[in-house]
Amino acid sequence: MAEGRHCLLTLTTDFGMEDGNVGVMKGVILGINPRAAIIDLSHDIPPQGIADAAYVMRRAYQFFPQGTIHVVVVDPGVGTDRRPIAVQSKRALFVAPDNGVLSYVLHHLQETGDHPQAVHLNNAAYWLPDVSHVFHGRDIFAPVAGHLSLGVPIDNLGPRIDDLLALPAPYLMRQAGRVAGQVMHVDHFGNLLTNISRSDLVPLGQTITTRVGEARISGLCTTFGDGHNGEPIAYVDSSGHLAIAVVNGNAQELLHSREGERVEVVAQQTSHLSNGETRD
Amino acid sequence: MAEGRHCLLTLTTDFGMEDGNVGVMKGVILGINPRAAIIDLSHDIPPQGIADAAYVMRRAYQFFPQGTIHVVVVDPGVGTDRRPIAVQSKRALFVAPDNGVLSYVLHHLQETGDHPQAVHLNNAAYWLPDVSHVFHGRDIFAPVAGHLSLGVPIDNLGPRIDDLLALPAPYLMRQAGRVAGQVMHVDHFGNLLTNISRSDLVPLGQTITTRVGEARISGLCTTFGDGHNGEPIAYVDSSGHLAIAVVNGNAQELLHSREGERVEVVAQQTSHLSNGETRD
Amino acid sequence: MAEGRHCLLTLTTDFGMEDGNVGVMKGVILGINPRAAIIDLSHDIPPQGIADAAYVMRRAYQFFPQGTIHVVVVDPGVGTDRRPIAVQSKRALFVAPDNGVLSYVLHHLQETGDHPQAVHLNNAAYWLPDVSHVFHGRDIFAPVAGHLSLGVPIDNLGPRIDDLLALPAPYLMRQAGRVAGQVMHVDHFGNLLTNISRSDLVPLGQTITTRVGEARISGLCTTFGDGHNGEPIAYVDSSGHLAIAVVNGNAQELLHSREGERVEVVAQQTSHLSNGETRD
Repeated sequence: MAEGRHCLLTLTTDFGMEDGNVGVMKGVILGINPRAAIIDLSHDIPPQGIADAAYVMRRAYQFFPQGTIHVVVVDPGVGTDRRPIAVQSKRALFVAPDNGVLSYVLHHLQETGDHPQAVHLNNAAYWLPDVSHVFHGRDIFAPVAGHLSLGVPIDNLGPRIDDLLALPAPYLMRQAGRVAGQVMHVDHFGNLLTNISRSDLVPLGQTITTRVGEARISGLCTTFGDGHNGEPIAYVDSSGHLAIAVVNGNAQELLHSREGERVEVVAQQTSHLSNGETRD
Repeated sequence: MAEGRHCLLTLTTDFGMEDGNVGVMKGVILGINPRAAIIDLSHDIPPQGIADAAYVMRRAYQFFPQGTIHVVVVDPGVGTDRRPIAVQSKRALFVAPDNGVLSYVLHHLQETGDHPQAVHLNNAAYWLPDVSHVFHGRDIFAPVAGHLSLGVPIDNLGPRIDDLLALPAPYLMRQAGRVAGQVMHVDHFGNLLTNISRSDLVPLGQTITTRVGEARISGLCTTFGDGHNGEPIAYVDSSGHLAIAVVNGNAQELLHSREGERVEVVAQQTSHLSNGETRD
Repeated sequence: MAEGRHCLLTLTTDFGMEDGNVGVMKGVILGINPRAAIIDLSHDIPPQGIADAAYVMRRAYQFFPQGTIHVVVVDPGVGTDRRPIAVQSKRALFVAPDNGVLSYVLHHLQETGDHPQAVHLNNAAYWLPDVSHVFHGRDIFAPVAGHLSLGVPIDNLGPRIDDLLALPAPYLMRQAGRVAGQVMHVDHFGNLLTNISRSDLVPLGQTITTRVGEARISGLCTTFGDGHNGEPIAYVDSSGHLAIAVVNGNAQELLHSREGERVEVVAQQTSHLSNGETRD
């Protein structure tokens, strides 16, 4: 029987899989805790895509068992004085650079009454002996996660801190008959996922129009099969937020959209007040 | 010791790995059965590529241990009235939407005398509490697979059904001195994998010509090293079917081929009957 | 409790993930040893990229626990008379075709006083019953690795051999005030990783210029955050070798570089002897 302690960890990076660096992080973790179970969340975060990783982590973390350790290494500031951190919440433990990559998770934890505690990972006793300046995923984050998975308390790893760096809040504006937000993430299918929640839509009533770029989309589909092939539809995605898809197609390509783009939803009775817009 | 029950599962989807959705499915499964071992079969099935997933599953399933649970989520009809199903065979258990994605496996099971039993997964007690309209991989298929991996009998999950949707059979025509089939899958190397089996080739004798698009390929190589660099060759692939490769090159690119394309093999003595075709 | 024996294995191939072939190899291994833990090192080695796989393996293997079994299947000669081999060192066990794919590991093992023993895998009792000519990853390497992970001694698998095929050594030339090497690998970020080690740089003193293609890069940065956005920098990578990056950018694209390209580092006092070169 291998020694160690059963514990679930996830890895999220912008490393890709081709260079073996993700595998090396797993080797380091399993060298410390052979019974760790490690899941890839995503390694295709765009290079230096801190906000994208924050979004992917936010959508995913609630679906993992209590006590899962989430390691996020999107770290353009590696080797500078940005701090490596661990954040302990009731639901989960997070290990990451202090560059905002946990912002959306932290915001959601606070909304749900889970007030996490953070430490600055500066105790080198839990790192690999030789720390490079450019691969803290291997040299700091993986070994720290391995030790945490064995039950080491976060306070062994460094001093408490309460000034974590946060990303600016995504754009969201609610007005009478209108709510505006932004594309948070373009998914594998080219669907545009926004930060406009189902509850933001309720005051707009039953007949809404969604505007993104030049497109005007009437109404809300329940699922993809409710639209016609090649047609853009608006729907509520699996995280409970407005999204735009093209049925059996790619919304990003058809609408020439991108992350950060403004999305607006208007109650239909107000839409004909605007000057001559038509659905294209 | 983590509770649960050792069981092997595979996942096949068109989700890609970048959004974290595959990881979320694993989190849901491991939340139900922490001792499940989960293997990625493919997450790069083309979007809505039901036939492609059916082909990948068919080639792979026999190489997994008895009792493996295969979860296939290529599901353009998610949230419509297409049924989620589980199929129990002697060799393996399958969890998928009823859209044909198990067709080629089911056909092969019947050929080998394994008559599986199917149920319509409609017992919500085995789903996540909140089921979205667009991500049944997370909300239905993953939790059902997790419970099955704990040993829950399929009959607990829903009523028996025997009218599973099947894809049309791939094109295959056997004549004297000639057999025609189709490209079933273009693999990572650009090799064209067909549905013409080794036994289909036997009646054609030793000297055959394979035709795909404008190309005429004489004879059959045993392996890639038997051809010359850059040359198209025909060979029998690892599933026992005719395939076309370019040695140290890419057949799809060289031959401008694609899935579904017709492939014909003729006995050489008949080939000079055709009007002036030459090998290019 | 599943039978078997806890053991860590890694897989490195040029198979990609889309066809299910990597999953099938895992199925075969777990059919033999259900308690094997299998890590993907890379499956995005370029097709037939023997040197690239050798490089990825060399960088990674030291970070895995003692006794890890590394399976490398980049195998353009599959089915020819190239030998399948297993190599046992103090640190790790390797299973691969004898085509040079272990060259850089073997060289490093010798440098560190670890003299491995190799066998020719010709004992078909440890293979799958039916061996195809084109997928020895599934039919020979995976089952052999599975049996090795159960503790089968390598001498059961075939006779000792001591004439392993080696790749030519990468280009490296050290002169007074100058060292030249080559780009070994372009990583996921487009960074150019070379074979010029930190110790090769010491004799050149503090002020060096790195030349790759038309670019001239002054000095050495400690980490990416020490340079300016879009600027090419030279730095020592996480394996202790010179590398070239573009800060928050892609060096391969900016410098039109590729694997195998010559890289030269000169002590600054000699650099103005060259005829009119300027940094671009």
